[in-house]
Amino acid sequence: MRLNIAVLPGDGIGPEVTNQAIKALKAIAMEFDHTFTFTYAPVGAIAIDQTGNPLPEETLDVCETTDAILFGAIGDPKYDNDPSAKVRPEQGLLRLRKSLGLYANIRPVKAYDTLIDKSPLKKHIIKGTDISIYRELTGGIYFGKKHLSDDGNVASDLCEYSREEIERIAHLAFKAAQSRKHKVTLVDKANVLESSRLWRKVVTEVATNYKDVELDFLFVDNAAMQMILNPKQFDVILTENMFGDIISDEASVIGGSIGLLASASVGDKYAMFEPIHGSFPQAKGKGIANPIASILSAAMLLDHFNLHTEANLIRIAVEKSLKLHITTQDINTKHDNVTTEKVGDFIEDYI
Amino acid sequence: MRLNIAVLPGDGIGPEVTNQAIKALKAIAMEFDHTFTFTYAPVGAIAIDQTGNPLPEETLDVCETTDAILFGAIGDPKYDNDPSAKVRPEQGLLRLRKSLGLYANIRPVKAYDTLIDKSPLKKHIIKGTDISIYRELTGGIYFGKKHLSDDGNVASDLCEYSREEIERIAHLAFKAAQSRKHKVTLVDKANVLESSRLWRKVVTEVATNYKDVELDFLFVDNAAMQMILNPKQFDVILTENMFGDIISDEASVIGGSIGLLASASVGDKYAMFEPIHGSFPQAKGKGIANPIASILSAAMLLDHFNLHTEANLIRIAVEKSLKLHITTQDINTKHDNVTTEKVGDFIEDYI
Ligand SMILES: CC(C)[C@H](C(=O)O)[C@@H](O)C(=O)O
Ligand SMILES: CC(C)[C@H](C(=O)O)[C@@H](O)C(=O)O
Repeated sequence: MRLNIAVLPGDGIGPEVTNQAIKALKAIAMEFDHTFTFTYAPVGAIAIDQTGNPLPEETLDVCETTDAILFGAIGDPKYDNDPSAKVRPEQGLLRLRKSLGLYANIRPVKAYDTLIDKSPLKKHIIKGTDISIYRELTGGIYFGKKHLSDDGNVASDLCEYSREEIERIAHLAFKAAQSRKHKVTLVDKANVLESSRLWRKVVTEVATNYKDVELDFLFVDNAAMQMILNPKQFDVILTENMFGDIISDEASVIGGSIGLLASASVGDKYAMFEPIHGSFPQAKGKGIANPIASILSAAMLLDHFNLHTEANLIRIAVEKSLKLHITTQDINTKHDNVTTEKVGDFIEDYI
Repeated sequence: MRLNIAVLPGDGIGPEVTNQAIKALKAIAMEFDHTFTFTYAPVGAIAIDQTGNPLPEETLDVCETTDAILFGAIGDPKYDNDPSAKVRPEQGLLRLRKSLGLYANIRPVKAYDTLIDKSPLKKHIIKGTDISIYRELTGGIYFGKKHLSDDGNVASDLCEYSREEIERIAHLAFKAAQSRKHKVTLVDKANVLESSRLWRKVVTEVATNYKDVELDFLFVDNAAMQMILNPKQFDVILTENMFGDIISDEASVIGGSIGLLASASVGDKYAMFEPIHGSFPQAKGKGIANPIASILSAAMLLDHFNLHTEANLIRIAVEKSLKLHITTQDINTKHDNVTTEKVGDFIEDYI
């Protein structure tokens, strides 16, 4: 198979982890006789530095003309504490999601047996956890109208959802549940928010098309608690943009490290694959960033093109590295100085 | 001291847990020669059933003419899955907060040594945790304009904050930090939300008045993760309404059970004290509801009137009950059938 892949390494540790994912993909191409080409493009703080724009036109063009996008990470602390900055790295990511219509962010959360002792949660709580989070990604308070009064003393953000926005991701979530444990949990705040009540109504309607899937509801505050008390109760979690952001980062501790969690952002036309961790600027260039989330994002990319054997080989290589403790320090209990690069090398060689 | 206390038991397990708090308060009054009078008023689903209104005028009157309010819980599942219900129990609580100007919800989170093994989190993670969460309670997306299009296909909620709303609670949080570990962590989503950027700006300004307090910032997704990875890093957490709702429920697992967490909601004129757990309708009338959160809310009420010796006696009685395993089943590892009533009796007798 020929695949033309856009590579957007972004900021902080983005480039170093993405490099390891590319090494894995190149090894797969060699092993299975595929042709993968990689086209690099800037996004985020680095794109602001180069062009003044966190998502330059050319980068968007590259994304629109390739088969899939491999994304690194975005964000730079120099923008975070400057409330008056007009241009910010995150806008690059948000515009990319919106422009490409990547409305569903899919985040698998699994407890790895080899890492189970690394989690702050007790073993019996997390053992066997296998959740797939479907987070809506192009609507809600992220994209609603923002306003700052002229005197700078009143600020607002609008959380808005339409029936269509809810329906399309709901269908994806129910379909996913059909090949899993047949359960969808909608996380919302329907006792307070009008938009949540629309979610509850539309999702209940969509559910009638999937009689083999059980639907239940959880208020987001309770969900944040249940995720720690009893994560095994979940199969597919469906939720809106902001709640999904919070709940999925929280859920990442189940896997032992956020450095392990990959995600796919898909729409009707395009698909992007990215680790859920951020740009982690303090770790940049130190060789301590965990490349596994990025490498597993590459596996999700292969799955997207039905290259399941290839994707699974990557996953087997990753599990092997975990078992042999060839891992970065965030999850390494035996040795201390396995670098980002060395983890990537091992996985490349194994493939 | 004479105190006139409004009692709003509300729905579900609200009445049964509130009863135990009143028993504790009566025992305190007897022991210390105070005169506490209690005026009951309906709120929530029960008030809808009686009057059609989740917050009847008379209830509000009672609250405005008493010295403090003891609140139970609110909510009934018959309203949760009915997106078209025009009147809902939660409106009673939200209107009460708004009408009385209870803008700061203070939620202490502590790991009890006697309960440390009950938590889903590992002992070394939580031991020594002592956090005070300051959640803004009368602004944000809870109270912003709500909208549902005529065809019912588009719904929205506005998250709005003004400088004043942020300033007043920020001052309370910094003052609290001064008599604690001198650290305030602002939880926001300033990389996405305009309202969060205003929070960051205003809180940074307020901080200049408290040079002995360190201020740091955390994005809410990261905060949801840090709360589990390393809760000991926190002293005072300051945050807006919705994020506070999520983060504080999440934090409740640190204490071993949400059935232990009390809260105070204060404004410039009124103060209300309530457990952070909900109405837990499945448990209603079964004698299994944990009354400790409500009893500790009564202790916070006494603190509010500088009756610290009295408040501490309640806390000592609670710790004694925990040590002797005279607790409801949610936190009981030894015996099984200590009822809500029995826990209340023990604490009353001890006092
Ligand atoms: C960087 C930020 C804008 C982004 C988000 O909030 O969506 C990130 O936290 C994520 O989850 O991908
Ligand atoms: C019942 C509900 C409206 C309420 C809230 O979200 O504020 C509750 O969860 C709380 O935290 O007191």
